Amino acid sequence: MPPVSPTELTQVSRNCSFGGWQMVYRHASAVLNCEMNVGVYLPPQAETQPCPVLYWLSGLTCTEQNFITKAGAQSYAAQHGLIVVAPDTSPRGCNLPGEDDNWDFGSGAGFYLNATQQPWAQHYHMYDYVVDELPGAIAANFPIKPGYQSISGHSMGGFGAVMIALKNPGRYKSVSAFSPILTPAQVQWGQNAFSKYLGNDSDLWDAYDPMYLIKAALERLPILIDQGEADSFLETQLQPHVFAQVCETLQHPLMLRMQPNYDHSYYFIASFMGDHLAHHAQALAG
Amino acid sequence: MPPVSPTELTQVSRNCSFGGWQMVYRHASAVLNCEMNVGVYLPPQAETQPCPVLYWLSGLTCTEQNFITKAGAQSYAAQHGLIVVAPDTSPRGCNLPGEDDNWDFGSGAGFYLNATQQPWAQHYHMYDYVVDELPGAIAANFPIKPGYQSISGHSMGGFGAVMIALKNPGRYKSVSAFSPILTPAQVQWGQNAFSKYLGNDSDLWDAYDPMYLIKAALERLPILIDQGEADSFLETQLQPHVFAQVCETLQHPLMLRMQPNYDHSYYFIASFMGDHLAHHAQALAG
Repeated sequence: MPPVSPTELTQVSRNCSFGGWQMVYRHASAVLNCEMNVGVYLPPQAETQPCPVLYWLSGLTCTEQNFITKAGAQSYAAQHGLIVVAPDTSPRGCNLPGEDDNWDFGSGAGFYLNATQQPWAQHYHMYDYVVDELPGAIAANFPIKPGYQSISGHSMGGFGAVMIALKNPGRYKSVSAFSPILTPAQVQWGQNAFSKYLGNDSDLWDAYDPMYLIKAALERLPILIDQGEADSFLETQLQPHVFAQVCETLQHPLMLRMQPNYDHSYYFIASFMGDHLAHHAQALAG
Repeated sequence: MPPVSPTELTQVSRNCSFGGWQMVYRHASAVLNCEMNVGVYLPPQAETQPCPVLYWLSGLTCTEQNFITKAGAQSYAAQHGLIVVAPDTSPRGCNLPGEDDNWDFGSGAGFYLNATQQPWAQHYHMYDYVVDELPGAIAANFPIKPGYQSISGHSMGGFGAVMIALKNPGRYKSVSAFSPILTPAQVQWGQNAFSKYLGNDSDLWDAYDPMYLIKAALERLPILIDQGEADSFLETQLQPHVFAQVCETLQHPLMLRMQPNYDHSYYFIASFMGDHLAHHAQALAG
């Protein structure tokens, strides 16, 4: 059997939504060495013209389903004419020892990096998947406006969005995040993932650490962050104030909006999704 | 232990949403003879003033969760200042023989009627629950604007909303439905439920049949219905055209909007939730 190209998408589901289509596809990822699900929202505008693309990276435990069913993004994507691409959060079904044992590591917790440690290095290359392979598959299948893409995400995916934008100057027109993990080398979620995926030498973690990357940033792309003040992970895992301090020192533009009463859930995300999609639509216009 | 009043609500969860609060409560229903979960969205306006209430009745297989996580109603409820109450769809955990055996009967499928047949008659009185007991609990706990309530729902719950509005003239300011079951006595879902809950004498089904109730309607409350044309249940279980024909003959005001490409899912519901909440808000104003 000839190898299947990652650009060959198989339709899993198709639902009309706000005049466009919420699709879920499955494809054979070469860099992840497994099959992956990805949600793609095609706004009504995509029927007649090329559209910019927003990549959404989900958080720990999520599949492609959480965002597409709970975030309410389709309404705003239809309004602004944005294609929204929401991949799964890790390789799955790879039969790696312990891959399903923990909710904050392995399946559902790929952390958007390229693992170097065994056995994860055989599959866990979510960085390459999100930055290169998936955009290639999207470009091959949908009417995208080349060069017009942005990135956002939640929690682990907010970390992914900020980290990927910082590592790839010029590639994204805008970046935003909800409740991102901003100091991964200093918190349990990040330390656990980085040590197992990248090894115990913490110097090697810098390549994926927003606290390091912000200092090396080659462009001053403004970062929009919404963070709930009632988020139970705020101080232990997320630490936006620590990141904000560095941004201030570096004069890197950061719009950190602390939102009273909001928690870590999709109720929070949905409440400010309109603001984020407007932010991206403005950057992607023209 | 003294009996617990149905008006005593225990908080299950609480999430800030669009400036208000999406709550889930649990309470001891006397008419259902079991504990029930109910979602209550409190808009920001409820902190300072009485608000009208919209009751939402969900469809087969749903709990109180489907609507509150997937419909995107909170955005519009916050905009219009509506309290939105979304109960579970049946008694649960009653240890009745076969209660969990079928997705279209028993648990998750209470059909918003008062069962007369054993063993269901001991618990399955969703009609009394939705029409009387639940509104009493809501009135006892939240700043409602007395007399200002409306009702809506999806599929089995759309049937429930239309049926309950028709049976209770003057009680609801407006009624709407997504993909409702409108001819229950003529389709498998309805025949199965009515025969088991109400017995085989189909004359007894008229009391809950919109096709009968519309003829006996004492008020001409306009009915707003959205129906997806790509809904796989359209002809077999829902039959809005049959109901529309009767409404036309009777000159009962019906706004039946057939929506091309839309299916039976919450993607469809979310797409037109804004229209429905605007419809109810207008009727509930003043």
